[in-house]
Amino acid sequence: MSSSYGKDMRITIFGQSHSPAIGVTIEGIPAGQEIDFNELAVFLDRRAPGRNEFSTARREADKPEFISGIKGNVTCGTPLTAIIRNTDTRSQDYEELVRIPRPGHADYTANVKYGGAQDYAGGGHFSGRMTAPLCVAGGIFMQFLRREGIEIISCIKSIGSISDENELTVSTAGKEFPAVSDDAGEKMRALIAAAKAEGDSVGGVIECKVIGVPAGLGDPMFDGIENRIAQAVFGIPAVKGIEFGIGFAAAKLRGSENNDCFEMKENKVVTKTNNCGGILGGITDGMPVVFRAAIKPTPSVAKEQRTLNLVTGEQEILRVGGRHDPCIVPRAVPCIESAAAIAVYDALLARRKEMR
Amino acid sequence: MSSSYGKDMRITIFGQSHSPAIGVTIEGIPAGQEIDFNELAVFLDRRAPGRNEFSTARREADKPEFISGIKGNVTCGTPLTAIIRNTDTRSQDYEELVRIPRPGHADYTANVKYGGAQDYAGGGHFSGRMTAPLCVAGGIFMQFLRREGIEIISCIKSIGSISDENELTVSTAGKEFPAVSDDAGEKMRALIAAAKAEGDSVGGVIECKVIGVPAGLGDPMFDGIENRIAQAVFGIPAVKGIEFGIGFAAAKLRGSENNDCFEMKENKVVTKTNNCGGILGGITDGMPVVFRAAIKPTPSVAKEQRTLNLVTGEQEILRVGGRHDPCIVPRAVPCIESAAAIAVYDALLARRKEMR
Amino acid sequence: MSSSYGKDMRITIFGQSHSPAIGVTIEGIPAGQEIDFNELAVFLDRRAPGRNEFSTARREADKPEFISGIKGNVTCGTPLTAIIRNTDTRSQDYEELVRIPRPGHADYTANVKYGGAQDYAGGGHFSGRMTAPLCVAGGIFMQFLRREGIEIISCIKSIGSISDENELTVSTAGKEFPAVSDDAGEKMRALIAAAKAEGDSVGGVIECKVIGVPAGLGDPMFDGIENRIAQAVFGIPAVKGIEFGIGFAAAKLRGSENNDCFEMKENKVVTKTNNCGGILGGITDGMPVVFRAAIKPTPSVAKEQRTLNLVTGEQEILRVGGRHDPCIVPRAVPCIESAAAIAVYDALLARRKEMR
Amino acid sequence: MSSSYGKDMRITIFGQSHSPAIGVTIEGIPAGQEIDFNELAVFLDRRAPGRNEFSTARREADKPEFISGIKGNVTCGTPLTAIIRNTDTRSQDYEELVRIPRPGHADYTANVKYGGAQDYAGGGHFSGRMTAPLCVAGGIFMQFLRREGIEIISCIKSIGSISDENELTVSTAGKEFPAVSDDAGEKMRALIAAAKAEGDSVGGVIECKVIGVPAGLGDPMFDGIENRIAQAVFGIPAVKGIEFGIGFAAAKLRGSENNDCFEMKENKVVTKTNNCGGILGGITDGMPVVFRAAIKPTPSVAKEQRTLNLVTGEQEILRVGGRHDPCIVPRAVPCIESAAAIAVYDALLARRKEMR
Repeated sequence: MSSSYGKDMRITIFGQSHSPAIGVTIEGIPAGQEIDFNELAVFLDRRAPGRNEFSTARREADKPEFISGIKGNVTCGTPLTAIIRNTDTRSQDYEELVRIPRPGHADYTANVKYGGAQDYAGGGHFSGRMTAPLCVAGGIFMQFLRREGIEIISCIKSIGSISDENELTVSTAGKEFPAVSDDAGEKMRALIAAAKAEGDSVGGVIECKVIGVPAGLGDPMFDGIENRIAQAVFGIPAVKGIEFGIGFAAAKLRGSENNDCFEMKENKVVTKTNNCGGILGGITDGMPVVFRAAIKPTPSVAKEQRTLNLVTGEQEILRVGGRHDPCIVPRAVPCIESAAAIAVYDALLARRKEMR
Repeated sequence: MSSSYGKDMRITIFGQSHSPAIGVTIEGIPAGQEIDFNELAVFLDRRAPGRNEFSTARREADKPEFISGIKGNVTCGTPLTAIIRNTDTRSQDYEELVRIPRPGHADYTANVKYGGAQDYAGGGHFSGRMTAPLCVAGGIFMQFLRREGIEIISCIKSIGSISDENELTVSTAGKEFPAVSDDAGEKMRALIAAAKAEGDSVGGVIECKVIGVPAGLGDPMFDGIENRIAQAVFGIPAVKGIEFGIGFAAAKLRGSENNDCFEMKENKVVTKTNNCGGILGGITDGMPVVFRAAIKPTPSVAKEQRTLNLVTGEQEILRVGGRHDPCIVPRAVPCIESAAAIAVYDALLARRKEMR
Repeated sequence: MSSSYGKDMRITIFGQSHSPAIGVTIEGIPAGQEIDFNELAVFLDRRAPGRNEFSTARREADKPEFISGIKGNVTCGTPLTAIIRNTDTRSQDYEELVRIPRPGHADYTANVKYGGAQDYAGGGHFSGRMTAPLCVAGGIFMQFLRREGIEIISCIKSIGSISDENELTVSTAGKEFPAVSDDAGEKMRALIAAAKAEGDSVGGVIECKVIGVPAGLGDPMFDGIENRIAQAVFGIPAVKGIEFGIGFAAAKLRGSENNDCFEMKENKVVTKTNNCGGILGGITDGMPVVFRAAIKPTPSVAKEQRTLNLVTGEQEILRVGGRHDPCIVPRAVPCIESAAAIAVYDALLARRKEMR
Repeated sequence: MSSSYGKDMRITIFGQSHSPAIGVTIEGIPAGQEIDFNELAVFLDRRAPGRNEFSTARREADKPEFISGIKGNVTCGTPLTAIIRNTDTRSQDYEELVRIPRPGHADYTANVKYGGAQDYAGGGHFSGRMTAPLCVAGGIFMQFLRREGIEIISCIKSIGSISDENELTVSTAGKEFPAVSDDAGEKMRALIAAAKAEGDSVGGVIECKVIGVPAGLGDPMFDGIENRIAQAVFGIPAVKGIEFGIGFAAAKLRGSENNDCFEMKENKVVTKTNNCGGILGGITDGMPVVFRAAIKPTPSVAKEQRTLNLVTGEQEILRVGGRHDPCIVPRAVPCIESAAAIAVYDALLARRKEMR
């Protein structure tokens, strides 16, 4: 089933880049939950295009219209649907993609899968634009989670080879460029600017922490917190890797180094280190859930690329026109938070079934 | 829901380390598929304990009994269940775990989640032993996939700081130590032996390739091949990270470097490089699907560790008794293949619904 | 999860009677399927209010806007969403329902379930109006089924005590009053008119046949064709019973009378009778699938009723204002067909996974 | 997916009549729930064969072995699996069924569906024997429900044309023949004996009540209590119809007659009548949930029947050998209760997610 997430609630994202609208349907939200629409708008702004010198020039209001599931600003318990109109759509730019697929994009694979019936305009359902309804859902669930004492924060950990080793401890949401250290952030911006100047793009790594999550969330084997978050995070186009706690670095350690020692602190069980990223056996241990996601460089580059003309079977020179983000990482930050939010909220609902 | 995987078929793994049996129920296998039980036994042997100097001394036949879903050696279309009896169970070793949870294990989180009702003996449902029924399912689906021209191969890419840069091109299934290069393999074994000698353990990275997969498998957003494989692979205890194609390395590249150029080869669309790991927009492009998983070092170490006595609130010195694998990575190789197999087979069934 | 149907595709109905819009999201439609919007409009007209003397005076265009999932008039493979704006909403009529629930309506149960947060205006999500998006989905799937040679027809079998014993063999879709026999239809209309004149309402029975369905659809036990159709049909408000084949009458027969004898006819396996309604062991046998649904009389009656004031705990006299259908059965006919269509299409997709 | 039920927990039934064993896997049971195995055995005895003069002579211990999911007699939170060995299997009786399908059985439809790979011995997965594991699950959930104050009772309402109009108010579990009135019961038994004497069989109707169910269970549209119970009940072979409250009789009433008037009784909201069967808008209103299921006569009759030889295309005379229940209705009573139990328990878990 395409574009659905969740077992104890369900989020379905619909729409194409150039369809009349895009949107999201959320089933299984408990009734009586208030939504702060202003706060949501501020959250959505963090993802919106056209905000700074690195993001695509396509500007849209991206204001969701809530067409069901609420009474005033309170959930009424039945499916919530929000839609965002597509206004700035110029489909004529895209017709060639069926013959000449762009490297790094889903043009070719969508063509095979849908047998030519895909909506290729603007990348269709594969457009990064589909993360807007993801953020509508994520922003709503982040509000609900906050009421349970759970906060989700994240930052850019690296852009290209520039990394920021400072620890993520507070939200970077208010920052124009969401790195922990402003110094590192400046270097990252310079790297992005350099890539842009060359008609190229660059990738990076985002770190996310879920703080205040109670011990006991998640299920053994296939519905562990790692499985749940991974399934959500890979829903964001351009994510190519995820690791929890120290992740791949754990593979280099001895067990005696990697194990996190339990201790008691202020009457709460904690671990001295958090190499496991707050997850043991798929279940939260009460420490922050920590993960990092690798974001590949935007495949749309102005620079010349070679690709294949599927009709002639010949190589062709391609220059992807239009204006594209030279680095999608800053705008991906709230998307990563959204993915974490839907995963954790779903696990929270599952947990409620177990408690009396 | 704990311990289930799949949307178009469903695998449910049940059992605890010391329950009468463990096993797997598979729903949604098409009827009329032959199972080669000898081949399956050979596959299961790759995961079985007690085979070499590094694996736990617990030896069991681990021979699955098929109690439903087949007629002779052919699937009959209704749910297939196989069970494996637990014979070597000494529950008295484990009673202390509820009070004094082992670092790096699920003792503490299971206790919170199940409120003390968990079956802690031998790690219960969190035991690595639960990968035996996963391999029963995986081994069966690998046979079915082979009939569709799809082969799954994998190898140990690194143990601790020793890595093997040789490319994985053929199965390592026949090898006693499944590294591509025997030289690198020898160094890895030495490292494991050293860790063992110190009463310690060590982790590593496994690489897996799915070869011969047709273009067009997988769905946009949350059911992409990355999402599907990640959800399955994190079902294996000890996995802490996963990356597809070049994964985290992609985050360091420019778009022009990372994009894979399409070309035509022997009348087939291929890409010159395979940085994307055979997946674009969540959908296979016909190139091998490539991923790597990070395996943490076995948390059970003979070496002294500090942990918390939950009853007294005091720190205690713990030495995990019994005999444990100093490195779980070699035995995890067929588990990773199994996880890939169930994910790809499920995607294949989904694909059939689209084709006419 | 509220308001979702399907396992191999999924339909989610959202909206409330007085929310900005109502609609449906359909996931899992194969790409490349044409939708005939004119034909769909004709189908939706059969359900629309205000068409004859017995249906509610609320008149709305009820024209769905397709906002995703299609390119032109062809499905593109990703989730299809259609919305219908609510225009004629007068919420002030309904505020009393929370204190004084109407008998036979969901006012009281929704209040308990949603703890007062329910959207009670116009019945909210429990309004018969939610069958409009059901018919959008159903009308689309009926078009797809027709291309597979499967036709769904239905008729009013009885209204109150007036029944029509004529056999349903051809569609009644073109009729103003969808009974097989015009004579019986006239008597039924007279009965409805009589109920209306008394400020009362009346129920009835609808029969539905799915013709041309291939043998082999449906699954044993909980996903048999009966289970699937029943789950869909009870999604229509006011349905209180369903029976397949001769249904409850079978309980009165001997086995030798009830069994349908197989025979060969024009090289096709058929049964001489069809007491089982085309379903054996949950699986279609190639004969028409036949079922009947009991529709209760509209609970909204102008006549005085007693009910409870939840605040005072006292009985009150209630007269449900506004204009309501004295009999919902005629407008329920296309809803029943829609429920059958989504159930059969879902079973058809499941079947494709089994076939090579 | 064949043979699974439930959304917030999941029951999967596996096995064939003549496979090594049959059984059930239950996921999503909360941990810490005690199971009374003696009480369960008493419940299973009500369904077991060979108990009286009307039931099949096949006698098996039918004692489930619990192989996972419990510690002692308490659920541990992970999947519970119970198996029942098949001991009395004589497969040679059944080989002819593929060529000469029995009327009223799934022999023909299974053959089409599984393309000849079906396990036809003893009816395979379509055997009534598969209701044994259903009753294992149902019996367990009935114990859990009782702790929540919910009791499920049922009775035979009619056999053939003999019906019992006495109201069902207390459990008939202790009776040898579960009719409310012993007089009516005697007449029903005489009717069964008469059918048996003629080598024939007879059907009947079972009524079931779920008492003590709190208001607020169930979801609008497709997951209403009616939808949920219907999907479970049609999982029992031979059920051909279901109705809630007064069901089909409601279709004959005026709205003013059918509506149930709310009133206050001992500080509880009740309805004066219960025509709706305790369900409004798919949600329980706190009154007993009432439904009736129609059971067709056993298709296996000793009497001569005509059927088709699929190989020759000719009609043949068939006499179904072996000893078969002349009436399955008495043994179906605990199966109906089990179906109700799994449906209500699943709805109860769904409800917990909504409550704080």
